[in-house]
Amino acid sequence: MANVDERKSVLDPWGTTVVEDYNHLYEEFGIQKFDSLLPNIPDPSMYMRRGVIFGHRDFDRVLEAMRQGGDFAVMSGIKPTGEFHLGTLMTAKEIIYFQQQGAQAFYAIADIEAYEDNRLPFEKTEKIAVGNVADLLALGFDPKKGCIYRQYKEQRVRDLAIHFGAGVTLATMKAIYGERHIGLYLSALIQAGDILMPQLKDFGGPKPTVVPVGVDQDAHLRLTRDLANKFRRKFKFVPPSSTYHKILKGLDGSPKMSKRNPMSYFTLNESPKSIGKKIMSAFTGGRATVEEQKKLGGVPEICPIYEIEMCHFVEDDKEVVETYKCCKCGNLMCGEHKARTKEIVTKFVEEHQRKREKLVDKAREILGVN
Amino acid sequence: MANVDERKSVLDPWGTTVVEDYNHLYEEFGIQKFDSLLPNIPDPSMYMRRGVIFGHRDFDRVLEAMRQGGDFAVMSGIKPTGEFHLGTLMTAKEIIYFQQQGAQAFYAIADIEAYEDNRLPFEKTEKIAVGNVADLLALGFDPKKGCIYRQYKEQRVRDLAIHFGAGVTLATMKAIYGERHIGLYLSALIQAGDILMPQLKDFGGPKPTVVPVGVDQDAHLRLTRDLANKFRRKFKFVPPSSTYHKILKGLDGSPKMSKRNPMSYFTLNESPKSIGKKIMSAFTGGRATVEEQKKLGGVPEICPIYEIEMCHFVEDDKEVVETYKCCKCGNLMCGEHKARTKEIVTKFVEEHQRKREKLVDKAREILGVN
Repeated sequence: MANVDERKSVLDPWGTTVVEDYNHLYEEFGIQKFDSLLPNIPDPSMYMRRGVIFGHRDFDRVLEAMRQGGDFAVMSGIKPTGEFHLGTLMTAKEIIYFQQQGAQAFYAIADIEAYEDNRLPFEKTEKIAVGNVADLLALGFDPKKGCIYRQYKEQRVRDLAIHFGAGVTLATMKAIYGERHIGLYLSALIQAGDILMPQLKDFGGPKPTVVPVGVDQDAHLRLTRDLANKFRRKFKFVPPSSTYHKILKGLDGSPKMSKRNPMSYFTLNESPKSIGKKIMSAFTGGRATVEEQKKLGGVPEICPIYEIEMCHFVEDDKEVVETYKCCKCGNLMCGEHKARTKEIVTKFVEEHQRKREKLVDKAREILGVN
Repeated sequence: MANVDERKSVLDPWGTTVVEDYNHLYEEFGIQKFDSLLPNIPDPSMYMRRGVIFGHRDFDRVLEAMRQGGDFAVMSGIKPTGEFHLGTLMTAKEIIYFQQQGAQAFYAIADIEAYEDNRLPFEKTEKIAVGNVADLLALGFDPKKGCIYRQYKEQRVRDLAIHFGAGVTLATMKAIYGERHIGLYLSALIQAGDILMPQLKDFGGPKPTVVPVGVDQDAHLRLTRDLANKFRRKFKFVPPSSTYHKILKGLDGSPKMSKRNPMSYFTLNESPKSIGKKIMSAFTGGRATVEEQKKLGGVPEICPIYEIEMCHFVEDDKEVVETYKCCKCGNLMCGEHKARTKEIVTKFVEEHQRKREKLVDKAREILGVN
């Protein structure tokens, strides 16, 4: 149940007020606001229209290429530690969006990071990666216009990491990652290699590249932009651009979805029954009693059910606005809303799982896994 | 001219008393003395017989394989920053010795280390490496029974480095190398990969491996032995063994040969004339005057001319002992000794350069360099 005493009750279906929580990012780290670019984007994605993507670095450069039909790339990836969830889904859909807008698309399986950070052996992440890639394909990634690879097997990324090693001091690494084992710092160099590989000759040379990530990943971007400058003379890198999306709240009311807390999230390959249960027992922006809610209205701004609908499961902007208003004015009760969301999500997941199953062999082939 | 006031005047042509300078290594670091193993070695090398190799770690294990005809390997390499000198010559001859004793021989071109530590680009070290490998072949390395490779191009070494990253804390790296950029730590992991690659399945699996190095390289060995233990479960590594040779004094009387000081050393590809000049102007263990030297004898124990003869250029033990005695009893004057050494060295170098020239193409082929 929501504690709304401190909340402003403004009409704001896209939660742009929440972005104010990120104000320090603009000031302290120089992340730019995304909304001013929006009118210039020919066919903005759902995430862009709805302020889920709220910030960027140098996205102008990518937008220019999009508008002029110039070469550009999109790059992101997944740490293969488990099944797709709503966070990795968001990144995947962002990549697919840019691919459909004409980008060369790169999707890294960060198996070196999974090894160095989570101690998952490559034999294990290889299997997980097959599932992840099947998910990506089921969501619409076109492998003919893109490059899906494992860090451990991609020598060009590893070559770049070796080059970059000469450009990063221990102090920089400690500032970003703290005192860790050397492998973790190595995996940071590898990640910089991932981000800059699209600019190698093999892929047509230097070009604007957008990296769509959660805002918690910005440190990697800063490191990589710094390396792009340091090694500009040799590689002619264009500093990579980035977009930042919000981090989704946990279904159980926790600040973010987390594997440590199974009720806070679900995966795309969980049984629809289990997902339904998590949705039905989710935290909401509802009031203490039905009477109170009818009188005061709900608080969608803090409601994870509203958030997952808005961020993932309802394509039509008007429909989302309608839901928002109905909740706000006390016409939509949480039980009804959850039941409806459960139906939408279940339908999506069932269809996704059907598509995915047929793509597992293709995923194996792409990754070169037997 | 020698300051001999503090020197004991014992008859010790192999300078084993000098090894006492290394006593703290035995106590502090647990390096074992080599001399007790000597009687068990079927065909000891010149360096072994003469105490140039004075210490080891677990060499017993390698000796056992040598005596029983079991599988074993020898591994060392060169940082491709310049031409072969007497230090790299010593390592090369040690590898060739073990190869002739039946070892699988591995010779690493440490181009990643040259890049991370000396900022030499791979385009440049590639050229230097061709010369280094031609030297190695001219000295008698048999490429059919060995593996010569560049770190940057050998994925198995790089794979191992990625594995090892998870096993080394920042504290360990700082203790060995101080506060450096990340690439230097990365090159240490790569070097551990070099030392343990001979034990991979591709090369017949786990086996005793000897790494003949200068005693200044022991930190790498300790790190690698530690990693061999940490990753024993996965790779079944036998901890690598090592032998330690003395570091040669500079020709000019400085404590060691150094590139910073061109008169302290020569390369195998320098003009014989230049080498001759350096030898003729070298520091020696001679006395202040000829009269004094005839009366008291010279001090070969501190003489770089005697040292390079003993360590490199005179094969016959009896001949070295004879020189030692003649010097000791005042029958051999420094001018005469230098002239003789100049002749021996010049002859060797001229012949070496002739052989080497014919092997440059072969070296290119081995390294895959155009």
